[in-house]
Amino acid sequence: MNCIVGQSGGPTSVINSSLSGVITAAIKNNFNSVYATLNGIEGVISDNIVEIDKEKFLELDVKNQLKKRPSSILGSCRFKLPSDLKDEVYETIFKRFREYKITSFIYIGGNDSMDTVMKLNQYMEQNNIDGINIVGVPKTIDNDLCEIDHSPGFASAAKYVLNTLKTIKMDIDIYDLKSVTFVEIMGRNAGWLAASSLLINSDEKEAVDLIYLGEMNITKEQILSEIKREVDIKGSIIVVVSEGFMDSEKYFENQTKVVFDSGFNHPVLSGIAQKLSDYTKDRLGIKTRAIEFSIVQRTSNIISKTDSEEAFELGYRGLELSISNTNIIPILKRKNTDEYNIEYTHIPSFEIANKERKIPEDWFESYKKLQNNIKKYVSPLIVGEVDHTYDNGILRFIDLKDFIKK
Amino acid sequence: MNCIVGQSGGPTSVINSSLSGVITAAIKNNFNSVYATLNGIEGVISDNIVEIDKEKFLELDVKNQLKKRPSSILGSCRFKLPSDLKDEVYETIFKRFREYKITSFIYIGGNDSMDTVMKLNQYMEQNNIDGINIVGVPKTIDNDLCEIDHSPGFASAAKYVLNTLKTIKMDIDIYDLKSVTFVEIMGRNAGWLAASSLLINSDEKEAVDLIYLGEMNITKEQILSEIKREVDIKGSIIVVVSEGFMDSEKYFENQTKVVFDSGFNHPVLSGIAQKLSDYTKDRLGIKTRAIEFSIVQRTSNIISKTDSEEAFELGYRGLELSISNTNIIPILKRKNTDEYNIEYTHIPSFEIANKERKIPEDWFESYKKLQNNIKKYVSPLIVGEVDHTYDNGILRFIDLKDFIKK
Repeated sequence: MNCIVGQSGGPTSVINSSLSGVITAAIKNNFNSVYATLNGIEGVISDNIVEIDKEKFLELDVKNQLKKRPSSILGSCRFKLPSDLKDEVYETIFKRFREYKITSFIYIGGNDSMDTVMKLNQYMEQNNIDGINIVGVPKTIDNDLCEIDHSPGFASAAKYVLNTLKTIKMDIDIYDLKSVTFVEIMGRNAGWLAASSLLINSDEKEAVDLIYLGEMNITKEQILSEIKREVDIKGSIIVVVSEGFMDSEKYFENQTKVVFDSGFNHPVLSGIAQKLSDYTKDRLGIKTRAIEFSIVQRTSNIISKTDSEEAFELGYRGLELSISNTNIIPILKRKNTDEYNIEYTHIPSFEIANKERKIPEDWFESYKKLQNNIKKYVSPLIVGEVDHTYDNGILRFIDLKDFIKK
Repeated sequence: MNCIVGQSGGPTSVINSSLSGVITAAIKNNFNSVYATLNGIEGVISDNIVEIDKEKFLELDVKNQLKKRPSSILGSCRFKLPSDLKDEVYETIFKRFREYKITSFIYIGGNDSMDTVMKLNQYMEQNNIDGINIVGVPKTIDNDLCEIDHSPGFASAAKYVLNTLKTIKMDIDIYDLKSVTFVEIMGRNAGWLAASSLLINSDEKEAVDLIYLGEMNITKEQILSEIKREVDIKGSIIVVVSEGFMDSEKYFENQTKVVFDSGFNHPVLSGIAQKLSDYTKDRLGIKTRAIEFSIVQRTSNIISKTDSEEAFELGYRGLELSISNTNIIPILKRKNTDEYNIEYTHIPSFEIANKERKIPEDWFESYKKLQNNIKKYVSPLIVGEVDHTYDNGILRFIDLKDFIKK
C-alpha cells in the first residue's frame, strides 16, 4: 500500500496536526511509501510530489513538531476540478496515482476541497476504477462545514481572536475618551469566528460591546443608534464585525469603491470594519479606528491543544478509513453530556462538499441567548495550549525538507 | 516618605514591569504610602489617585503578575503641560502632592511624557519647591528615545513583529502565485521597529524581501521597480513599511484623501501600506494585500523576558534615584563586549524630553549593512519568553483592583 496526502484551501494553525495524524497512521499501518503532493491537487497534476522519510519522521519527532507548525506545510491551492468528468485533467490525475501505485489519497481541506474528493470519487465510479480510495479530512477556521460539530482550525483561530481582543480592550481602555474600535474578523459568510469573541464578556464586564454578523439583519441607522447608546454609557467601545456582514439595505456594499482624488481611479475593496468606522466617524463625530486581524488570525502562534489533538485524530482516522473505504470524511460529534465529550464517526463527502453552515437562526432571539450559546459551544474547544520553541527569541518550526527523502 | 507613580503615552507590553519595579523598590525602601495616579498626570490634577495595598502586593505576587500584564494598568493620557509655568495647573498639581505628602513622583513614559518631568522640575526650581523629587522612567515601542541604548517596550514589540511576520511568510508562501503583501509597522518617524523584522532573514532565505523606513529617501518609481524585480525572481514577496515612511516626492502624501463615490465626501487617512498596495496593484497588475499590525503590536501576548527584566530594573532604579535626586531618568547603556552586557546609569530629563532618535544614516549604506547592524543591535534584546497563565484557554491578567486599598 502507498498513500499520498495533500492540503488545500486556506491554512489553519492545526492543518499540520491533521497531516501528522495521516503520516503517523500510515507508518503504523505499514504503508510502503508515504507521499505528499505540494500545492494540493495541482501537485498531483504537475507531478510535484515528495516522499516522506519515515525514519526521519520518527527520529526527529516530526509527529509533535507538526502540531506546533501553523500554515499548510505542503503548500495549498484553490483549484476547483471541472464539472465535466470527461475533462482530461481527471485522466492525468489517475495516471499519476497509478505511476506512484497509490492506494489511498487523503485530502485535507474545507468545503471547496471536499468537492475535489467528491468529484474524484464520481470519476472513479463512472470509470470503474478500483484499487484506490479517496478520503477527505476536514479543516477550516470559518467553522462553516456541515454535519461536523466543529471544524478543526476554528478553535485555534477563535482562541487567537478572543485573546487578542482581550488585550485590545486593555489598550483602548487606558485613555479617558470616547472612541469606537471596529475589529473585522474572518469567517466568510458564517459568523462563528467573530461570535467567539463573546467568550471574553462576563456578567460584570463587557469587552465586546456590539457585534455584527452576516447572519444578522440590521440597518445602518440601527447600528448607529446602538453605537451611540453604548458610547454614551461606556465611553470607549469595541464593535466586532464579521467580514461577511452587510447592512440589510446593502448600503455599505455601495461603499466598496473608493476613488483616490489625485490620480488613478480604480475601485478598492475596503473591509466592512473600515467602512463602518468611516461612516460612524462621519455621522457621530467620534474618534473611530478599524482593525483587521487579516491573515494573522489563521496562522498565529496561539494554538488550542484541544483543537490540535482533534485535528490529529481526524487525520489519523482519515488514513485508517481509506484502507477499506472511499468517498467519506471522518468527523466529530459532540455527545450530549455535561462534560465535553467527543465521538468520531464519518459521513459521505457530499454532505460537506460545497455546503455551508451558519449560526442557527434561533440563537439570535436575544443578545444574551447568542452569547450563552456561543460560550457553551466554543468554551471547551479552546482549552489547553501548545507550547512553542524559540531560538533566541525567534519561533522555530520544523521544515518540510527535514523529513522528506532527497 | 510617600511616593506616587503614573503611566503616560502609548502602552507597551512591559510598561507594567516598570511599575512593578517602582512599587517593589518603594516597599523595599520603606515608603509609608505608595500611591498611583490614574490616567497619568491627569489623575493628579483631578485627584484620581489610588493607594497600593502593600500586603496584597506581596501576598498575591503582584511583582511577577505585573510582568505578564501588557498595556498600562494605571491608564494613560496624552496631556502635555503648558509651556507657561505660571499656568494654574502647576499650582493644582503641587497642591495635590502636598495633600498626599508626596516625596517622590515617578512618571513612566516616552519623550512627550519626559517633557512633563522636565516642566514640573522647572516649576519647582522657579518656585523654590523642595521636599519632592520628580523622576522619569523611559518606555516606548518606537525606540526613538535619545541617549538610552534601547527603550523598554521596544524589544517585546519587535519580538511580536518579527515572529508574526514569520508566520505571515508561512501563510503567503503556500500558494503558487505572484503576490505582494505590504505590512505596516508602528514606530512614528523612526524605523527601528519595522527594521527589526530583518531578524527573520537568513543568508539562505529572505522572509522580508523589501523594507521602506522613514529614514530612507526613495521615489515611488524606484519602489515599483524594486517590487517588480523581487516578484519576478520570487513570486510572492513581503514588503515591510514603517508607518513614518513617505516617498521622496511625497506622492503618497497626496493620496491620503479617499472619497467615497456614493455619498458622504470626507477625507480618510489610510495607512501608507494600503496606499503602496493600491498603487502597486494599479501599476503592476499583481495581487496585493495590505496588513496593519495596528495596536496589537504594542500590547501583544509575546513579551521578551530580557525586555521585561530591564523595564523592571529601570522602574526599580527610578524609585531609588528619586529618594535623593530629581529631574533625572535612569537609562541603560550597552557595554562594548562580545556578550550582551548592560549597565545602568542616569541622565537629566532634558536629554530625552521632546527629542527623537532615528536609525543612524550610515547604516543605510547598503541593505546588507542595515540588516547586519539591526541584527547585532536587536538580537540580544528579544531573548527569553514570559509565560502566560490561561484559564480554560483565556489569558488571565492581574487586575488593578486586586492590589489597591478599597
